[in-house]
Amino acid sequence: MKQVVNAVGRTVPEKIRGIQYTPFKGAFATPPTGKKHAPPMRAVNPGESKLIDLEDAIKTYVKDGMTISFHHHLRNGDFLVNEVLQIAAELGKKDLVLASTALFPCHEPVVEHMKAGVIRRIEGSMNGPVGKACSYGHMKEIATLRDHGGRARAVECGDLPIDVAFIAAPAADDYGNCNGVYGPSACGPLAYSHADSLYADMVIVVTDNLVEFPCVPISIPQITVDHIAEIGVLGDSQQIVSGTTQVTRSPTNIQIAEYVVETIDTLGMIQDGMSFQAGAGGISLSVTAQLGALMEDRKVVGSFGLGGVTKYLVDLLEKGVIKKIIDGQCFDLPSVASLRDDPRHQEISMLYSSAHTKGSIYNKLDLVFLGATEVDVNFNVNVNTHSDGLLLHGIGGHQGPAASADVTFITAPLYRNRIPIIRKEVTTVSTPGEVVDVVVTEYGIAVHPKRKDILQKVKKTHIPVYGIEELQQEAYALCGEPQSPELSEDIIALIQWRDGTLLDTVKRVKED
Amino acid sequence: MKQVVNAVGRTVPEKIRGIQYTPFKGAFATPPTGKKHAPPMRAVNPGESKLIDLEDAIKTYVKDGMTISFHHHLRNGDFLVNEVLQIAAELGKKDLVLASTALFPCHEPVVEHMKAGVIRRIEGSMNGPVGKACSYGHMKEIATLRDHGGRARAVECGDLPIDVAFIAAPAADDYGNCNGVYGPSACGPLAYSHADSLYADMVIVVTDNLVEFPCVPISIPQITVDHIAEIGVLGDSQQIVSGTTQVTRSPTNIQIAEYVVETIDTLGMIQDGMSFQAGAGGISLSVTAQLGALMEDRKVVGSFGLGGVTKYLVDLLEKGVIKKIIDGQCFDLPSVASLRDDPRHQEISMLYSSAHTKGSIYNKLDLVFLGATEVDVNFNVNVNTHSDGLLLHGIGGHQGPAASADVTFITAPLYRNRIPIIRKEVTTVSTPGEVVDVVVTEYGIAVHPKRKDILQKVKKTHIPVYGIEELQQEAYALCGEPQSPELSEDIIALIQWRDGTLLDTVKRVKED
Repeated sequence: MKQVVNAVGRTVPEKIRGIQYTPFKGAFATPPTGKKHAPPMRAVNPGESKLIDLEDAIKTYVKDGMTISFHHHLRNGDFLVNEVLQIAAELGKKDLVLASTALFPCHEPVVEHMKAGVIRRIEGSMNGPVGKACSYGHMKEIATLRDHGGRARAVECGDLPIDVAFIAAPAADDYGNCNGVYGPSACGPLAYSHADSLYADMVIVVTDNLVEFPCVPISIPQITVDHIAEIGVLGDSQQIVSGTTQVTRSPTNIQIAEYVVETIDTLGMIQDGMSFQAGAGGISLSVTAQLGALMEDRKVVGSFGLGGVTKYLVDLLEKGVIKKIIDGQCFDLPSVASLRDDPRHQEISMLYSSAHTKGSIYNKLDLVFLGATEVDVNFNVNVNTHSDGLLLHGIGGHQGPAASADVTFITAPLYRNRIPIIRKEVTTVSTPGEVVDVVVTEYGIAVHPKRKDILQKVKKTHIPVYGIEELQQEAYALCGEPQSPELSEDIIALIQWRDGTLLDTVKRVKED
Repeated sequence: MKQVVNAVGRTVPEKIRGIQYTPFKGAFATPPTGKKHAPPMRAVNPGESKLIDLEDAIKTYVKDGMTISFHHHLRNGDFLVNEVLQIAAELGKKDLVLASTALFPCHEPVVEHMKAGVIRRIEGSMNGPVGKACSYGHMKEIATLRDHGGRARAVECGDLPIDVAFIAAPAADDYGNCNGVYGPSACGPLAYSHADSLYADMVIVVTDNLVEFPCVPISIPQITVDHIAEIGVLGDSQQIVSGTTQVTRSPTNIQIAEYVVETIDTLGMIQDGMSFQAGAGGISLSVTAQLGALMEDRKVVGSFGLGGVTKYLVDLLEKGVIKKIIDGQCFDLPSVASLRDDPRHQEISMLYSSAHTKGSIYNKLDLVFLGATEVDVNFNVNVNTHSDGLLLHGIGGHQGPAASADVTFITAPLYRNRIPIIRKEVTTVSTPGEVVDVVVTEYGIAVHPKRKDILQKVKKTHIPVYGIEELQQEAYALCGEPQSPELSEDIIALIQWRDGTLLDTVKRVKED
């Protein structure tokens, strides 16, 4: 396997499964080429029913070797991936490529399907046991990981051609118009599946809540849907969205959030028209709550907040602290209710996250606060692998906003469980340091050298400012130098940058 | 030019401009083949502005010979088509194909651009002076007329590739998210332009109402928009939508509407869950009003009404007589307000009208009431040409619902201005008789022979039922036999069926 060193210093193969890969060349160095993927024209005539039995659909349309896709809005409550794969396995299907936007611990049965040859490869985020099994070499082919927008891009440009898309829809009519805001499995937007609905060869909406035609609002329109299958239950509603999300109570995390907000304030960015992305992690929620309180206090009105949406963002909308919410994913029930009832709360397609579209939503962000599993002295961020080398998380929505927002904050404690988080070199590069502006720890902050403007301003405050190496040294002083994981030379997964270039690889871990 | 006789008995050419045409073979006899049109992938990076001056846009992107497109939601109030063509003419552009979804009397300046060679061909509906000029042979190439859904189909499958789409947007942000429900030029949905936004090579949103980012609701998303041009005024708001629409007061038309409603009632179709399409013509409005009153009286609740939306449909929604409105076009201000404020009133893409999509909205219609310029003894309908042969109207939304609804009513008086409307042969076949179920005149109704079920039921009522020839003979008896128009053998326009096959041609009229 011929390998090259890419722009972030990682050695990556030039070819995988006969496909030529471009090594990562820089955050915006590889523009798109070619045309969008073109699915077939297909007509459904008057009188034809689009309803189908799920097993019949799988029997008829899923052929050995095909790529089948799912969205992950049902998160750790999803039943559909397991159900479809179980049926496929029983039907003797094999060598499938599983292109779920993300898999969660509830999808542990996927591991057995990998081992049994039902699945030969996964292209998507693997959170928990499936990633672990992949790390141990239990997947026949090398997996591909992309961030949310990179996955939408790959579907749109044909890098990831989908044969059959299964779209879990909490409310759907018998013609396929569907949404995620009504029904027992309500999850909010169906944003992750928009690209699949547009570009898959065959689109099958699966619902546990078949409603009267026409189902409105229309998140995915009938004109892209081939069939609708009704099943008993789509998922465990307790696990799909939380009843409520909670800010962190950890003093460390609260301190980190305070430093973020103080830095934003120092930069003079708390002003009318400001925009920011808030995730659902404890620190992000804490930043959102603190920032929102400060905005409210100063009567500053922001233009929009971008989700993963939680009640903290919804509260800001309802108080008039922000004017709009742009929503690709809901994390709790108040957010789902807000998306359903408040026209200022707008669902978008995950194609809005793509780098190769006519302007990603991230381009409009002033601020983003993102977490990290590891950060290194080059500001590179790892969110995929733990320090033992195990692939336990997807890239999620990390790369896009990091690359595009005016100021990107990476929040992380100096160490966790006595393992340094700020370190000489990350185990895996999920997001390259060139797009990171400020790393914030409970100990203090480090500013990327290219952001002299930020450095100048924060130096005048009481916020403790360090060089990134100083943070790393402090972490090592407190915990000792971390041991490198024992890894095989075998690549088990590719980490793509949002433009489709190869950012890093993940190596096999020896099973205990 | 080699010609063939198609399934509706018309002689049509096999080839035009080197393009092979399939003759019309029957309403559902020609399924789609091939793939959707694939526009180029394109990236807009952070910091790039998408704003452009309209003249610069035309200078930069419109090349001689290109196809440029517009939507017609601004109807007879539109300024944009004239403005773009004026600039193009001043820049010396020539041989353009004008693919506006429809042109109106306000677009009379287009005639001069045709004569001057700025425009070589029109693909779209021509209402009024432009159609007349085309009839007289003032267009360099043969025009193509399609119904709304056929035009969306042609854009989607690549039969009508669009180089530059200009999308008039009553509200838009600087990234191209836009809608038609806010602003001085508010027109309702932007449905006609959805296909263009998805499939044109270059998409330019033009607005007179640049709003703060993000513009919501999002009718057309930023991810499909290359540029946004701000201009002073998009159109004459008085002409874009009426302040109000009015039902007919003509006793003839009221009688026709009564027969329609009585027939529907006789068929037992006034029942919960019923759906219907209502247009904005006087008879259609009268049917809507009468049918709605009857439904209300009987406490029948319909599932949806399909627009062209008027306040008559909105009233039914607000009274709970229908549950939803599905909206491709608004005709008056109350409809625009309803679309803006009522979540049960849902905008759809004109791709919902395409025959070659995974289920047109028309397939879900129980009933449709459509007008006619002429109807013949084979139930063929002409809505394009007057009996003097002049091309004065587009096909509009005639073909799709006629082909797809359970019962299609064609409403027309027996004669107008002493010219028989029910006649031996229509001047132009816009919609083939095979998809028509009932022709309703003030004199009585005629049922298509294939609908024995309908015939049996209506014969038991007091509704006067005739053979279609009897209606024709009565018309001739009253007005005398109509004279055939004096037409040249030169084809000036093609009438396509909604599946892209050739239904008829329009011949040149000798100019007085």
